[in-house]
Amino acid sequence: MLRENRYAVIMAGGRGERFWPLSTAARPKQVLSLVGGRPMLAQAVDRLKGFIPPERILIITSASLVDVSREAVPELPPANVIGEPCGRDTAAACALGAAVVKARCPGGSFCILTADHVIKPIDRFQQILEHGFTVAERGESLVTIGIKPAFPSTGFGYIECGETISDGDVRVFKARRFVEKPDAQTAATYLLAGNYLWNSGMFVWKADALLAALQQHEKPVHDMAVAMLPVVDRPAFEACLTAEYNRLGRISIDYAVMEKATNIVTAAGDFEWYDVGSWPALEDHFEKDADGNVIVGDGAMLDSGGNVVISENRLTALIGVHDLVVVHAAQATLICPKARAQEVKQMVQLLSADERYAHVL
Amino acid sequence: MLRENRYAVIMAGGRGERFWPLSTAARPKQVLSLVGGRPMLAQAVDRLKGFIPPERILIITSASLVDVSREAVPELPPANVIGEPCGRDTAAACALGAAVVKARCPGGSFCILTADHVIKPIDRFQQILEHGFTVAERGESLVTIGIKPAFPSTGFGYIECGETISDGDVRVFKARRFVEKPDAQTAATYLLAGNYLWNSGMFVWKADALLAALQQHEKPVHDMAVAMLPVVDRPAFEACLTAEYNRLGRISIDYAVMEKATNIVTAAGDFEWYDVGSWPALEDHFEKDADGNVIVGDGAMLDSGGNVVISENRLTALIGVHDLVVVHAAQATLICPKARAQEVKQMVQLLSADERYAHVL
Repeated sequence: MLRENRYAVIMAGGRGERFWPLSTAARPKQVLSLVGGRPMLAQAVDRLKGFIPPERILIITSASLVDVSREAVPELPPANVIGEPCGRDTAAACALGAAVVKARCPGGSFCILTADHVIKPIDRFQQILEHGFTVAERGESLVTIGIKPAFPSTGFGYIECGETISDGDVRVFKARRFVEKPDAQTAATYLLAGNYLWNSGMFVWKADALLAALQQHEKPVHDMAVAMLPVVDRPAFEACLTAEYNRLGRISIDYAVMEKATNIVTAAGDFEWYDVGSWPALEDHFEKDADGNVIVGDGAMLDSGGNVVISENRLTALIGVHDLVVVHAAQATLICPKARAQEVKQMVQLLSADERYAHVL
Repeated sequence: MLRENRYAVIMAGGRGERFWPLSTAARPKQVLSLVGGRPMLAQAVDRLKGFIPPERILIITSASLVDVSREAVPELPPANVIGEPCGRDTAAACALGAAVVKARCPGGSFCILTADHVIKPIDRFQQILEHGFTVAERGESLVTIGIKPAFPSTGFGYIECGETISDGDVRVFKARRFVEKPDAQTAATYLLAGNYLWNSGMFVWKADALLAALQQHEKPVHDMAVAMLPVVDRPAFEACLTAEYNRLGRISIDYAVMEKATNIVTAAGDFEWYDVGSWPALEDHFEKDADGNVIVGDGAMLDSGGNVVISENRLTALIGVHDLVVVHAAQATLICPKARAQEVKQMVQLLSADERYAHVL
């Protein structure tokens, strides 16, 4: 199973504002142990155990997060944690991954993974990936991992599946089109239609196949990758990357390639795949007390229910409060109703305007 | 004005559970700077400035609080902060005060004050006290300071005033009777009647007059004071006090004396007198922001109003929450609706049952 030309690239550049105050610019979501007892990033690496070894796992993150990311995943060679000098969205990160993989392993293939999700069981996840690699290596296809929708989500993009390519243990389809996040009614239609999968942001392809698609559909990003090829693992890498990235605009891989290319296939991922996207999402990952409270750390409740309390190194005592999110970080505390947890982003924005709060952001 | 035979005894033995988590067994309410920027106890001493000097101000507190009380009021001679070995309610504390005053100053008089309140203006407060001393020193009366009711409170006992004794700048009445905390309807009747004052728990009397009343109405407490007289300011004081207190039951000065004695007069205190009794009471003592939030320390609000937030050395960010009390102490946080702040006592009780929480109580 351990093919030497298979790599994994984990994209972990996000800021995770929705997990403020625990997540900050210097210690974002992916290096926190929100669920599962290990940093999200470490869990993303753990999921590849027995399938892709640490030497062939790359992490692409922002330059400012290289150190904390290396700390979170000490089993990776330091050179495998690559810092982007500025954010240029996912097309550039995928292309940079292709450059590194191609430089280290001409003819190599890689999967793009994220660190934002809880995935289980790992066995099935690896089976789907294995099949994705097999399909990708067989030709020039760009393989996307689609997720069987669990509900009519308006929070994900969708992939409309066309003809069946393989119908065995792993089902693979031609992708008819990529569609952006739908409204509620459209999402319901997709769910009923049965041939729409969530766009997970996970892909498998040969480095050369991705570069070919970029050459056709997003030349500037392709050219960046080609320019980087000769400096991979060499002293000029960082300076070269900065110069190249400075010339790029921001564009996502979906918009740059997936919505345009015609050689896209989808492997249906029938594993559990949870976006741990905001504080209330933690409810799905922890045991609740008799009153429906999720308490991580130390909480004391009097007539209080349905709360999500993150209180490490501190006791939080609640009297008569319901459905609140309460999160303590070292120097800041957040309190808001679960239903308004999305507005944490606005709070972070509000605080950004005041330099007194720089130390908590 | 500075009469050498006038003393003040500040009773400061309370535990202040309603101010948990800031107030704890080791640092109770009276040594905290909840309002006014100084410990409540220090403010009680400040209020006597120019009227009774620190050498003649005594503090009676529990033995475990002698050190923190001395720290809170360093201007008092250490010997003036007296620790009770166990709580025996206010009759014993008043009698102990009488013993110390009589031992140091035969024929002396003293006022009993508390450290729980905000009082202003101080000028007027001192005028009323001055008048109280004058009345007390003129005969054998026990003078109580009554407070003109601001509303039909069910939280205070009342004094029914009888015939007017003096009707000048300070009005003094014979007290007809002491009544315990009334129900709402009775309280309204008292307010309408016009001749009821709140029982403030502040008194002025000659030490001898109080001892005489105790001899008549509560002999065991009287005998304790008489036994203590010869050991005041001597090495045997503490051991003797422990032995005497061990023999006493708990009884309040109201029940022991004020509800029985016939030589009671009331000076009408027409100064502002606020019981700072629970977290929501702080609303009366701090400026509110445009949305009615009281924020002591550092708070950031998004669509949140009517909250009381105590957040020193930490930022508290609220999104979409209203009328909550949020209080951070070093190792514990309390969150409850303002309307349920009285239940903090139950929370303290709940936590007392678990030894893991000993460090926050």
